[in-house]
Amino acid sequence: MKKSISLLSALILSSSLSAASLVEEAKSFNLLPLPQNQAEVDLVLKENGLEASKFSVEKADLGKKLYFEPRLSKSGIISCNTCHNLGLGGTDGVSAAVGHKWASNPHHLNSPTVYNSVLNTTQFWDGRAKTLADQAKGPIEAEPEMATPAKLAVEKISSLPEYVSEFKKIYGRSGVNFDNIADAIANFERTLITPSRYDKFLRGDEKALTKEEQAGLKLFIDKGCVSCHNGINLGGSMQAFEVASQYKFANLGDFKGDENGLVKTPTLRNIAQTAPYFHNGAIWSLQEAIKEMGSVQLGIAISNKEAKSIEKFLHALSGEKPQISYPQLPASTDKTPKPQL
Amino acid sequence: MKKSISLLSALILSSSLSAASLVEEAKSFNLLPLPQNQAEVDLVLKENGLEASKFSVEKADLGKKLYFEPRLSKSGIISCNTCHNLGLGGTDGVSAAVGHKWASNPHHLNSPTVYNSVLNTTQFWDGRAKTLADQAKGPIEAEPEMATPAKLAVEKISSLPEYVSEFKKIYGRSGVNFDNIADAIANFERTLITPSRYDKFLRGDEKALTKEEQAGLKLFIDKGCVSCHNGINLGGSMQAFEVASQYKFANLGDFKGDENGLVKTPTLRNIAQTAPYFHNGAIWSLQEAIKEMGSVQLGIAISNKEAKSIEKFLHALSGEKPQISYPQLPASTDKTPKPQL
Repeated sequence: MKKSISLLSALILSSSLSAASLVEEAKSFNLLPLPQNQAEVDLVLKENGLEASKFSVEKADLGKKLYFEPRLSKSGIISCNTCHNLGLGGTDGVSAAVGHKWASNPHHLNSPTVYNSVLNTTQFWDGRAKTLADQAKGPIEAEPEMATPAKLAVEKISSLPEYVSEFKKIYGRSGVNFDNIADAIANFERTLITPSRYDKFLRGDEKALTKEEQAGLKLFIDKGCVSCHNGINLGGSMQAFEVASQYKFANLGDFKGDENGLVKTPTLRNIAQTAPYFHNGAIWSLQEAIKEMGSVQLGIAISNKEAKSIEKFLHALSGEKPQISYPQLPASTDKTPKPQL
Repeated sequence: MKKSISLLSALILSSSLSAASLVEEAKSFNLLPLPQNQAEVDLVLKENGLEASKFSVEKADLGKKLYFEPRLSKSGIISCNTCHNLGLGGTDGVSAAVGHKWASNPHHLNSPTVYNSVLNTTQFWDGRAKTLADQAKGPIEAEPEMATPAKLAVEKISSLPEYVSEFKKIYGRSGVNFDNIADAIANFERTLITPSRYDKFLRGDEKALTKEEQAGLKLFIDKGCVSCHNGINLGGSMQAFEVASQYKFANLGDFKGDENGLVKTPTLRNIAQTAPYFHNGAIWSLQEAIKEMGSVQLGIAISNKEAKSIEKFLHALSGEKPQISYPQLPASTDKTPKPQL
C-alpha cells in the first residue's frame, strides 16, 4: 500500500512537473494568455505597435449597435454581424463571404472571426489594415460586401437622432463621421475576447487542460505549428505561405497574399467553431486542415493520429463568449436614405 | 384663490373623467391591453380559437437559438431574424423581403413584425396560417426566402448534437423534426411581447398617455380606424381591403388577399418602428399611411392635422422590447450539410 501511494505521488509529481514545463515551453514560443481587461488590451496594442482611441464602455455600447446595424449597408439588410456572426464563432460558416446583391467575395476569401481580432497584429488576409478601426471601414464600403460609400453611411447614421446625440456625447464636435463610426465599432470589437481553458493552463492551472490536450499542445509545438501560430492569438501576424509545397486548393480564387506574398495567419482561438478553413474556405475538416498545413507550411506528413491529437488541443481553444444583449436600434426617420436593393 | 383652486379641481376631475371614459370607450371597441404572462397568452389563444403546444421556458430558449439560426436556410446566412429583425421593431425595413440568392418576394410582400404576433388571430398577409408554429414553416421552406426543404432543415439541425439532446429533452422520442423546430420557434415568439404606455393607460394609469396622445386615440376611434384595428393587437385579423376606393399603389405586386379578397390587418403596435407600410411596403411615412387608410378603407379625407394627432397616438404604441441575450449556436460537424449558395 505504501509503495503504491509513493508511486502515485511520483506520478503526480512527474505529471505536475511536465505540465509546468509544458507551460514554460509554450511561453518560450510566445504562447501567451489573453488579456483580462481593457488596460491589458491596451498593453498588447502597444506591444504590437498599434494605435487605438481610448477605450470606453460608451463607445463599445454605441459600437455594438453599429455592429448589428443593417442600415450601414446599402440594402439595409447586411450588418457586420451577417458575416462575422457572434453566435457562430464570429464567422459566417460559408467558404467565401456573400454580400450586396448576393455577390461572392471576388477573391473567394473566407470571413475571419471577429473574436479576439483586436489581438491580431494586422487585419485582412493581406494585412492591409493594421487596426480594427481601419478594418471596419473596408467591408462597409466594399461593393461586394455592404456597398455603402462612406458619405452614404454617414448620411444614414446622421438621419437617426438617437445616434446623433450619442456620437455628440462621445466624440464631441466631430459627431457622426466615418472615422467615428469605425472607431465605435472597433471599441465594441475590443470586448470580444474569449478566455478558454488553455488560458487558465497558461496561467498555472495545470488541470485546466486534460492530459490528451496537453499532449496535443506538445505535438503542436514539436511539429512546428507554433512557428506561425504563436502569440496571444496563436496567429494574427503576416507569414510566408506555401513554404514547403503548394496548397491543394490554391486555384480557388486569385488571392496571392500581400505584395511580398505574405498571408495573415488566422488565429486558432475558437478554430473548432469556424470552419471552413484556409483563406478560401476550401477545407471543412479541422483534421484535414492540420495535415494540409503540415505539408504546405512545414513539409512534413502529419499522421491521422497526430492530427487527432493536435485537434484535441485546438478544441480547448474554444473560449467563453461575452454575453451580448441584442441591441434595439433607432427607428428610421423621413430623412433616412431608403434601402437600395 | 379659493375659486381658482376649485376651478383646478374641476379641471382635474373633468380631465380624469374624460380619460376614464376614453378607456371605457376604447374597451367598448375591443381595444385591450397586452397579456402580462404566458398564462394570459394562453387565454388569448383560446379566445382566438388557436391551438398551441404547452409553453415552456426550455422550448422558448431552444426556439431563440433556432430563430437566430442561419443554418436553417439553404445558404447558411439567412435566419428568421434577417427579415424579422428584433432590433428593428421585428421587421427588415425594406419594402419587400429579400431572400435566398437575393430573391425579391414574388408578390412584393412586406415582412410583418414578429413582435406580439402571437396575439394576431391569423398569420401571413392572406391569413393562410393560423398559428405561429404553422407560420414558421413557411419562410424556412419558401424558395425565395430561406429555401430549405423540411427534410434538409431536419438534417441540418440533427447534425448538431447540442440541438439533438435539447430536442430529446424537450420533445422526448419525436426529437428533431420539422414540427418541433417550428414549435420551438413559436414558443420563443410567444415571449416577444412589448408592453407600452398605451397598455398602462388601458389598465387605468390615466397619465400614461399625454393629453395629445389621448386626443389621438379618441380621433382614431371616432374616425373609424378602430373598425379594423381593434383587439389586443389593434389589428391581426382578416378584413376587407379597398372598401371605399383603390389603394394608390395597388399595382405594385400581385397580392389580392385570400380567396375572399380579405387581407390581414397589420398590428399597429410598434408601427412607428416598422416602416414601410401596407402589404407591399410602398408608403414610408406614417402620416401618409394614415391618410391613405382613411381614403381606401373609410372613404374619408383625413386632414394633415388629424393625421398628425393619430400619429401621436400611434407612437405611444411603441413598446418595451424583451431583452434578448444573443445566442451561441452549436458548431457545425462533419455531418452538417454544407451551405448551398
